[in-house]
Amino acid sequence: MDRPICFFSDYGYTDDFAGVCRAVIARLAPDVRVIDVTHGLPERDVLAGAVVLRNTLPYMPDKAVILAVVDPGVGGPRRPVAMRSHGDRLFVGPDNGLLMHAVALDGGVSSAYELSNQELWLSPLSATFHGRDIFAPVAARLAAGLDLESCGAPVDPETLDRIDLPEPRRHRDGLTATAVLVDRFGNVALNLRARDLEKAHLIETVELIAGNERYLARVARTFASVRTSDIVVLIDSYGQASVAVNAGSAAEVLGLDAGDEIRIRRLG
Amino acid sequence: MDRPICFFSDYGYTDDFAGVCRAVIARLAPDVRVIDVTHGLPERDVLAGAVVLRNTLPYMPDKAVILAVVDPGVGGPRRPVAMRSHGDRLFVGPDNGLLMHAVALDGGVSSAYELSNQELWLSPLSATFHGRDIFAPVAARLAAGLDLESCGAPVDPETLDRIDLPEPRRHRDGLTATAVLVDRFGNVALNLRARDLEKAHLIETVELIAGNERYLARVARTFASVRTSDIVVLIDSYGQASVAVNAGSAAEVLGLDAGDEIRIRRLG
Amino acid sequence: MDRPICFFSDYGYTDDFAGVCRAVIARLAPDVRVIDVTHGLPERDVLAGAVVLRNTLPYMPDKAVILAVVDPGVGGPRRPVAMRSHGDRLFVGPDNGLLMHAVALDGGVSSAYELSNQELWLSPLSATFHGRDIFAPVAARLAAGLDLESCGAPVDPETLDRIDLPEPRRHRDGLTATAVLVDRFGNVALNLRARDLEKAHLIETVELIAGNERYLARVARTFASVRTSDIVVLIDSYGQASVAVNAGSAAEVLGLDAGDEIRIRRLG
Repeated sequence: MDRPICFFSDYGYTDDFAGVCRAVIARLAPDVRVIDVTHGLPERDVLAGAVVLRNTLPYMPDKAVILAVVDPGVGGPRRPVAMRSHGDRLFVGPDNGLLMHAVALDGGVSSAYELSNQELWLSPLSATFHGRDIFAPVAARLAAGLDLESCGAPVDPETLDRIDLPEPRRHRDGLTATAVLVDRFGNVALNLRARDLEKAHLIETVELIAGNERYLARVARTFASVRTSDIVVLIDSYGQASVAVNAGSAAEVLGLDAGDEIRIRRLG
Repeated sequence: MDRPICFFSDYGYTDDFAGVCRAVIARLAPDVRVIDVTHGLPERDVLAGAVVLRNTLPYMPDKAVILAVVDPGVGGPRRPVAMRSHGDRLFVGPDNGLLMHAVALDGGVSSAYELSNQELWLSPLSATFHGRDIFAPVAARLAAGLDLESCGAPVDPETLDRIDLPEPRRHRDGLTATAVLVDRFGNVALNLRARDLEKAHLIETVELIAGNERYLARVARTFASVRTSDIVVLIDSYGQASVAVNAGSAAEVLGLDAGDEIRIRRLG
Repeated sequence: MDRPICFFSDYGYTDDFAGVCRAVIARLAPDVRVIDVTHGLPERDVLAGAVVLRNTLPYMPDKAVILAVVDPGVGGPRRPVAMRSHGDRLFVGPDNGLLMHAVALDGGVSSAYELSNQELWLSPLSATFHGRDIFAPVAARLAAGLDLESCGAPVDPETLDRIDLPEPRRHRDGLTATAVLVDRFGNVALNLRARDLEKAHLIETVELIAGNERYLARVARTFASVRTSDIVVLIDSYGQASVAVNAGSAAEVLGLDAGDEIRIRRLG
């Protein structure tokens, strides 16, 4: 029974990168289903990719092969790896922390291997496109039933590269959070969950400080409860607090980018 | 026998929105074929989405499930619905008019249901991503054979929300039309059919008035018949009159956006 | 046994163009697998499309149907064609040179036909969307087993339209190359292979002249071997020499676009 492949990357849609990987998969495993979750991950932003992988993991099919490529260190010393989670999904990608938050959410690493078995790679191997030459062909073969052990040398899970999510900082009158993801609608996801807002008593109306500007915002459950152009802090569909503007772009209105800090203050 | 799902949205390609819906479908209905018709519908523009759905309907497979999401009112009082057309396609999406022109072209509503059966939803239900939590899982189950009646409470088709296409206005010397869609090439589709141009005797050479500017344009059948950079009014591949610039962008040259009016005048 | 369809176009992702073609294929050949290699080919740039098709061909499945549409002459006299290569892949698209470099790499033309059998087209035929009305339905039927001979009148391969790749010019102290493709990361592929650089003794450090500006660049194998923001000339994953900036956009830094010339000079 084939496993489906869920494919994430920062390859974008302008070029042939993701499509060539799909063609490589189709050559090696013609019956495997490939779900392109997104190829629009922010370029070379491993942390943002890790957040998206973690957020979306619960929606991926059971036993899926998660193939993920955000790989600014391609061609350098970072290892290509494959892992099995205790939730029995397989994860294939670079050992740069991209996969680890999703694996942790799926029960943690059960076993990990370096993709050192060159018989599974395409030949010749390029220096810059391991998605095509290593990750896609290995994912295809795993999806079609190859044993994880055949991928290469076992890796001690303790040695796998981790990447930390930024922690919010608590103040007497609120929190300082970090923007971790900006979506196409300009909604800005923060490194905060609903309970962080509650614990800091950030409810109803708050002040946001971004750069040198201050903004009034409502803490709300949906856009439908506020007026057009109002700024809202809402819990998004992945359980993250995010800053949004009803029928507008919070990223534009507040001048926010991934990595920027934003302060949220209680009023009154 | 599974129905294929034809998936339309304004989710774009930058984020994981459409991909997560695909993953949800693959979990629930692993054998159903999903055709991503477009996720590039103009953001929150229900009318533009309705035009694209209507235009492309004749090309969709018979018995398809049309899953369409342009849903600025998500989380508010608008109902999620599923309908069967007399043409025996199923339509799943928000009750905001998005689906109705396509359903009408497919013979009209045969039966309609509110998606009130919460057993078919994902849980927990988010306030902002009903595509993932309601529409995709219901579409997946319908595609795999679920009875439409199981979706929830029957809805009187007369109560379904409609959205009107703008009507062209006739003048002594021509027409005023509205731009309804701008494509990637900058071609601007108008709310006009070939017969509207003919009835108004808009043939060969016409004057276009957009904003405060006037332009000479040819009424032509193809780009091949005009010179580079010429402005043309042509009947596009969906039978709509559209303004185009040979090897250029009419939207840029004429400064046109969806919703803008353009006047077309006879010359001589 | 069905052939998979590998679909390339300049249709982009904003509009329904590629998706409607996929729907047309699904209507006619519901079991055929479609691999969307890319719909981000540069608009109306037949040469760039030809380069991408040639580069990616070795990664396409055996016996694939290559469906490719970059078709600025649609509706004019250019012929729609289908070809079999000596490598037993089938190629469907406009006779404007787009397909020929890929076909040549696949062993050359074994037989070619004009798509003149109107029974295979959609009806009514539009003047501007032959991807939907001619190319996709013919590709679908070929993938499902239709004989190539049924497509229409045989074409003498000698009469097929060719498009030449620009040739680099050799100087006493280096080369003048042409940019043929710019990818999303701003990497600029040149009409040069590794051996061209070697023959011209362009190794280690070189000077690049683009427009009126001069830049120092390293000839390197990977990004990992240079510092952030360094300009590099590297052999990309398709074997082409390309100009890149580590963690940046060479197209922006050097102001380069497809079609631009760049001079590469030996130093010392």
